[in-house]
Amino acid sequence: MGKLIVILVEAALELIPTSIADHPSILHYKRKKGKRSDQLLLDRAYHHFAMKHLPEAEKRGRPDIIHLTLLNMLNTPLNKRGLLECYIHTREDKVIQVDPEIRITRHYDRFLGLIEQLYTLGEVPPAAKPLLKIEDSTLAQLIEKVNVTKVVGLSMHGSFRPLKEVCEDISQLPRVAVLIGGFPKGQYKKTHLQLMDELYKIYRERLDAWSIACRVIHQFELASGISF
Amino acid sequence: MGKLIVILVEAALELIPTSIADHPSILHYKRKKGKRSDQLLLDRAYHHFAMKHLPEAEKRGRPDIIHLTLLNMLNTPLNKRGLLECYIHTREDKVIQVDPEIRITRHYDRFLGLIEQLYTLGEVPPAAKPLLKIEDSTLAQLIEKVNVTKVVGLSMHGSFRPLKEVCEDISQLPRVAVLIGGFPKGQYKKTHLQLMDELYKIYRERLDAWSIACRVIHQFELASGISF
Repeated sequence: MGKLIVILVEAALELIPTSIADHPSILHYKRKKGKRSDQLLLDRAYHHFAMKHLPEAEKRGRPDIIHLTLLNMLNTPLNKRGLLECYIHTREDKVIQVDPEIRITRHYDRFLGLIEQLYTLGEVPPAAKPLLKIEDSTLAQLIEKVNVTKVVGLSMHGSFRPLKEVCEDISQLPRVAVLIGGFPKGQYKKTHLQLMDELYKIYRERLDAWSIACRVIHQFELASGISF
Repeated sequence: MGKLIVILVEAALELIPTSIADHPSILHYKRKKGKRSDQLLLDRAYHHFAMKHLPEAEKRGRPDIIHLTLLNMLNTPLNKRGLLECYIHTREDKVIQVDPEIRITRHYDRFLGLIEQLYTLGEVPPAAKPLLKIEDSTLAQLIEKVNVTKVVGLSMHGSFRPLKEVCEDISQLPRVAVLIGGFPKGQYKKTHLQLMDELYKIYRERLDAWSIACRVIHQFELASGISF
């Protein structure tokens, strides 16, 4: 049976950039959290005004996308059968490798704390079997490393193809990577588009990354005979 | 085309009970939030120790279940086509009516604040078109009010039937209610089971309420020809 590799691409996850570290709203946030800005994640919900002048601001500072997507992917029949691999590729070319046994906290603030710890230590939890690891890696390097048969990107800019058909195809292959944009709007970078063998639009309307992830996994389970 | 009515049943949502209002962890939490305990939601993540001696503690204090389920249900093709109605029935027999146009905040703490405001005011947002309303209502009263053709409950204690089959059936009917448990473990109350025309187990393993909601909506869209 084929394994599904889901990669969240250009995920809107990064530490607070130095260029806005002195903005009043960031200073207030640092004080409240008792951490330095290079130990805190950028989050539009808290740093909206400070982010205004950042380049590509509309694609940045959305750790909630990563949180909700992981919550939707991990406690699934597919993952429990060992047939799912998850990776988060960030817009700064870092890659987070997710152990399938991790239980992601449902509490957003605790999730932020966990990922901030990950950025500081390189892996978490400390002093136990690491369940999340982060390292510098481009998307191309990640795809090379995970060794897949095919790379399928999902995007509003792809050609329309029903998700059911896409999943029936890929469930026949041993290891296929499905790439989902980890940012709130906009397109993949050109260099990333070039890495995709196929690019599909699976719905007429934009769905949130976490809804896409849930539906891809569900449909892949149906195609593989894991769900009915 | 049939409409889908999803009811989260016995949802683990309630204000902090008076009986534990003086527990040290609750006193600390009240001070931090600057609110009275009857203005704050019970949440196992914060009140674990205080909850220990509450009856049925394992079924209570999980607002995150409601948050994640709403996030998975609302931004979907089904809801955008006006074919979804959502209700939250709580374990204390209150019913929250969800306007399909609401955009649920992705931030958990802000969601808690919104629901706390809802408990105080009866509807939110104040001074605008209400997007959430809460009222006293039993599940039986709610089911009578929403006027459905059939009531289908989902539970690990039901008879096994693939979700695909269930959805193909119910998408043929004009208005069917699908009931999902809004609590982390345990069974529906007997009086609630008696309201269900059919009770199905759709997976061999327990899934989170938010995963079930996502899959039911996706499969219903497939059965109705909204998704492909």
